[in-house]
Amino acid sequence: MAVVLPFEPKDPSIETLVRLVKGDMERVNALILSRTGSDVAMIPEVATHLISSGGKRLRPMLTIACAALSDYEGEGHIKLAASVEFMHTATLLHDDVVDESDMRRGKLAARKVWGNEASVLVGDFLLGQAFKMMVEVGILECLDILSTAACTIAEGEVMQLAAAKNTETSEDDYLAVIRGKTAELFAAACEVGAVLNHRPKAEQTACRSFGMNLGIAFQLVDDVLDYGGSQAKLGKNIGDDFREGKITLPVILAFRRGDAQERAFWKEALEQSETSDEQLQKAIALLIKHRALADTLERAQHYGAMARDALALFGPSPVKDALVEAVDFAISRGY
Amino acid sequence: MAVVLPFEPKDPSIETLVRLVKGDMERVNALILSRTGSDVAMIPEVATHLISSGGKRLRPMLTIACAALSDYEGEGHIKLAASVEFMHTATLLHDDVVDESDMRRGKLAARKVWGNEASVLVGDFLLGQAFKMMVEVGILECLDILSTAACTIAEGEVMQLAAAKNTETSEDDYLAVIRGKTAELFAAACEVGAVLNHRPKAEQTACRSFGMNLGIAFQLVDDVLDYGGSQAKLGKNIGDDFREGKITLPVILAFRRGDAQERAFWKEALEQSETSDEQLQKAIALLIKHRALADTLERAQHYGAMARDALALFGPSPVKDALVEAVDFAISRGY
Repeated sequence: MAVVLPFEPKDPSIETLVRLVKGDMERVNALILSRTGSDVAMIPEVATHLISSGGKRLRPMLTIACAALSDYEGEGHIKLAASVEFMHTATLLHDDVVDESDMRRGKLAARKVWGNEASVLVGDFLLGQAFKMMVEVGILECLDILSTAACTIAEGEVMQLAAAKNTETSEDDYLAVIRGKTAELFAAACEVGAVLNHRPKAEQTACRSFGMNLGIAFQLVDDVLDYGGSQAKLGKNIGDDFREGKITLPVILAFRRGDAQERAFWKEALEQSETSDEQLQKAIALLIKHRALADTLERAQHYGAMARDALALFGPSPVKDALVEAVDFAISRGY
Repeated sequence: MAVVLPFEPKDPSIETLVRLVKGDMERVNALILSRTGSDVAMIPEVATHLISSGGKRLRPMLTIACAALSDYEGEGHIKLAASVEFMHTATLLHDDVVDESDMRRGKLAARKVWGNEASVLVGDFLLGQAFKMMVEVGILECLDILSTAACTIAEGEVMQLAAAKNTETSEDDYLAVIRGKTAELFAAACEVGAVLNHRPKAEQTACRSFGMNLGIAFQLVDDVLDYGGSQAKLGKNIGDDFREGKITLPVILAFRRGDAQERAFWKEALEQSETSDEQLQKAIALLIKHRALADTLERAQHYGAMARDALALFGPSPVKDALVEAVDFAISRGY
């Protein structure tokens, strides 16, 4: 078991990691652009709309960093990193259809511009390209890890669908959902970095565990940010989860800690198709009253600690330091 | 170039092929059922709804038959055949969302029972399982063929989307669409059967060509059947393509051969969101007037002849005879 350390306020940044992987990431980005190419014009249009809209590319960075941590000197990490980003992009395109989202990364969701059909099919195309690139790298163990991840991600999303609007969802149920829909791809992205260089099993497992726990922490912080962070600051994009009736950990904690009247409020609000600003205000007040945002961040710190500890068996190196700082950064976003 | 032979009426049947592959197909079917399993209950529910609704399983039969044609004696063909069927099932689930279909194989489409979300996500799960099974077989060349097919299928579907309701679509455009959306998976299903046993490149190419041309013929006959076959017999499920505004070869031929007034009719009817029975009757009359159904079947015969000729370099065997008869059967459905 990892020890939960109190979070020490400092100013962690993702920039150290970004700087270390910069050269390789330029090649990954070039590959991503070239592999969205198709004679069918709508495919690069839809794919580029999302891909060029400035995601952080955190997942491919993890593959590059874990390959570096494993002293890998070949070329396979570039294609695997691009595969990981394509799997992520395909998931986003399909998620928009599933969630009926209107916006994604501050732009109109692809489905609003080109329709649900295009989002589904271009997602399928990108998934196919992801597998093609993995096949080109030609290491069956990496193909196994990433194809298993594809199944697990879909399972996590279906679990979320089944749990939607269900206030009875337990913290354990919710953890199973985010392990699948978010953390599994982080885990696979890190693991293939170590597998590429045929590192000892313990190191592969360590990278996987780092990614899995970072992914859980990352999602929990995202859940908190959807209610404005620990300070519950109002701003744009606040309350999307609430309006979609998504059951996230802050809601699960506040629901369990609330009285009958409060539970009735949560049930009603999350099951409605339309929610009001007043309801969102009340939800945030209840989240604060029951320390649900602060405690979700404490849970995130717990997984962050496990992620850091997973890297303990690697000797000191700039890339290890950068990965540890990335964990601190992921969590600091919520404060 | 293949020579187009006049179609000789006899009574070809798929039963010879079915009988020859029966033992292996029982194992494929058992594998398909076991691989739809998941702790997430909705996944087997949705998958089984479609998988158990009695598709012909033509594609996996082709993999099994081409493995037999190539004297393969290993076990890999079972998993590859199941992968091919999962890819097909995933495509059907996603197609229903794209086409907003209400029915599939005489049952309510999965999206009408469980929603678009479930159809998208369970399709993704099955695609992931398909790749997992290919990885277990562990032959990179097969993974390459099938992941390339996944991309090409998506490209074909997007092309169809872009061509929807566009009466300017040419016969060549349309052939590109059906090569992608239908024939590519037939081609890949056959090719991997030969690749499994590391047969000479010429035999692999022959199997691929057989599948590709059979797939084109199969789709053209389906297009004719959607208007009731060469006799234009009215029955259930007649006119679905017409109502969805799908541009298929019969329409392309009738449109080009028609006068200005007829073209105006096609334009109006195919661009409408609702069509009447009277419009369908008129469409069928125009298809007959211009021999569009009969000539589409002649085109199908052309591709059928190429499929048969592709198998010429294999010596005589029961499985070769059964594959040739399957081509005849595919075409005879349209008469």
